[in-house]
Amino acid sequence: MDKLTNLSEIGEFGLIERLTKDNTLKNRTSLLGVGDDCAVMEYGESPVLVSTDAMAEGVHFDMMYTPLKHLGYKVCVTNFSDIYAMNGIPQQIVVSLSVSSKYSLEALEELYGGIKLACKKYNVDLVGGDTTSSKGGMFISVTVLGKGEKNKIVKRSGAKKNDLICVSGDLGAAYAGLLVLQREKVTFEANPSFQPDLKPYEYVIQRHLKPEAQKKIIEFFKEKNIVPTSMIDISDGLASECLHICKQSNTGCEIYLEKLPIDYQTSKTLEEFKILPETAALNGGEDYELLFTINQKDYEKIKDHDNISIIGYVTDESSGCKLITPQNTAMDIKAQGFNHYSNKNC
Amino acid sequence: MDKLTNLSEIGEFGLIERLTKDNTLKNRTSLLGVGDDCAVMEYGESPVLVSTDAMAEGVHFDMMYTPLKHLGYKVCVTNFSDIYAMNGIPQQIVVSLSVSSKYSLEALEELYGGIKLACKKYNVDLVGGDTTSSKGGMFISVTVLGKGEKNKIVKRSGAKKNDLICVSGDLGAAYAGLLVLQREKVTFEANPSFQPDLKPYEYVIQRHLKPEAQKKIIEFFKEKNIVPTSMIDISDGLASECLHICKQSNTGCEIYLEKLPIDYQTSKTLEEFKILPETAALNGGEDYELLFTINQKDYEKIKDHDNISIIGYVTDESSGCKLITPQNTAMDIKAQGFNHYSNKNC
Repeated sequence: MDKLTNLSEIGEFGLIERLTKDNTLKNRTSLLGVGDDCAVMEYGESPVLVSTDAMAEGVHFDMMYTPLKHLGYKVCVTNFSDIYAMNGIPQQIVVSLSVSSKYSLEALEELYGGIKLACKKYNVDLVGGDTTSSKGGMFISVTVLGKGEKNKIVKRSGAKKNDLICVSGDLGAAYAGLLVLQREKVTFEANPSFQPDLKPYEYVIQRHLKPEAQKKIIEFFKEKNIVPTSMIDISDGLASECLHICKQSNTGCEIYLEKLPIDYQTSKTLEEFKILPETAALNGGEDYELLFTINQKDYEKIKDHDNISIIGYVTDESSGCKLITPQNTAMDIKAQGFNHYSNKNC
Repeated sequence: MDKLTNLSEIGEFGLIERLTKDNTLKNRTSLLGVGDDCAVMEYGESPVLVSTDAMAEGVHFDMMYTPLKHLGYKVCVTNFSDIYAMNGIPQQIVVSLSVSSKYSLEALEELYGGIKLACKKYNVDLVGGDTTSSKGGMFISVTVLGKGEKNKIVKRSGAKKNDLICVSGDLGAAYAGLLVLQREKVTFEANPSFQPDLKPYEYVIQRHLKPEAQKKIIEFFKEKNIVPTSMIDISDGLASECLHICKQSNTGCEIYLEKLPIDYQTSKTLEEFKILPETAALNGGEDYELLFTINQKDYEKIKDHDNISIIGYVTDESSGCKLITPQNTAMDIKAQGFNHYSNKNC
């Protein structure tokens, strides 16, 4: 018998590539399949966007420090983020939930409380679901449907040479929050009477436990009549997402290390863990910010936006994907991201 | 602290009711939410149907006798069945998969082989997904999108007094197949060198491991210009589904026990287990046949269809939901269905 391939050898993206090779679209209603933040369908005037994101106990969240309400909120927001990443507006979700009978009705009401709160805040309807028991931990999968505008759907593949590379908000905070929570868990396990002071970490912890999606950025695009040339949401770290855009657009890029937007609390927290903030920004993941490229003609429209940073520009494919240090050294961008089959991510 | 409510006390439907109470639809694109086989959306001319169905290892399937290819096929087909149950045509799926690293790439290729086979047979496009690791067993959730025709979407709620109650195919076979597989598992565990002869059970085992959805019935409706007044797919047993239709249509029903379509191999197999075939038909589940009601004017159109049985008719709500024995005794229809939190279902 041939040797079987362990999943950790090929990683998540390798796995998806293998499982979906030879996959072709047959239906007239299917416009875009696997390989972007969302699939795109056409059932009439408005393109329909669809995306799915799952979270598993012990992999994406640790019940020891994840309040169920936050978990419900987060799994919705991460899905909404995929719709925004196509320049769409999330409309509906369906929720698949698998839980063991150790959970009470009241615990699941907490979880659904978070789901409903996210739906309310982002104006999304919960339209269906499936709830089943589990012999293992909790597993929750949300599928979101969103509305796009014809000719304004933004894919990963549209970046052009000389476009500006922009990012919303700040990066690395969710990873810093995760590190704090993991540290406090270890301390708590050693001494359950210890009361941690989490005040100095409030922002980073919130970024991990209760992230937000970038609705306002999409509204700003609409208001200013900006259509980014490419876009992706940052779930696996900036480096990985940059590579996705460049690969799918057949371009290279230059990203300036000192331009990476990093919050002060994030920097201070990462210092405690002896991690360079830029490393967390590049590889930390779970920021749910938007990475996008725009034509230089739109520079005037975005240059004064408080929450958008220009971090580099698009180059020729042959130039590769480069990180430029303050000393003007160019390094290759490498994606670490999270490989769920070899790293811990909660 | 108040006593917490155990999930087994309220069952799946009670749980869904509690979790989705006060849930209202806000978006213009949302036409129908929780409470039918699918949700219905409007993004243009053609209504969009969406449904999600999940399967968990040890709850819905047992790895000991479930080939991964069959599992992939089944989870798709059960989703397609929900779209057909609204008189729609499945178009796209997204797949959420959570698997532990004990599975090899080759094992997942088998699973996806089944998914692709189902997509090919039913002309559905695989457009996206999310794959993540799991600390427990395998969990797979599929969300399906389908296309409906305006004014031809069939809900559970449209049955009218005197409508004929019909069912496609035959019932109870999947449950009989499950019983055989469970018996062989016990035998195998006691004596691993034992080679079971499964030939006499081929049909019932196939109905459990590799069910089909009722595409042809929907095509027949279109061809004959029949729009059922109500419809549901039979996943939890005929009794449970009858009660859903009657409750949501505010009607009663009379179902004739001797009219229940039961295959010969199913009867023979159930006899070995000392189970009445009618009991399996009413409460066995996983048949994925369609239960529907039609106006009497359509009787001529369906009466000669080989694969449709008329099993009763719709009555006033005040008459209740009754099962009529060959001796003309009326009994109340009670739903056992499967409560995943108290029964085993694989």
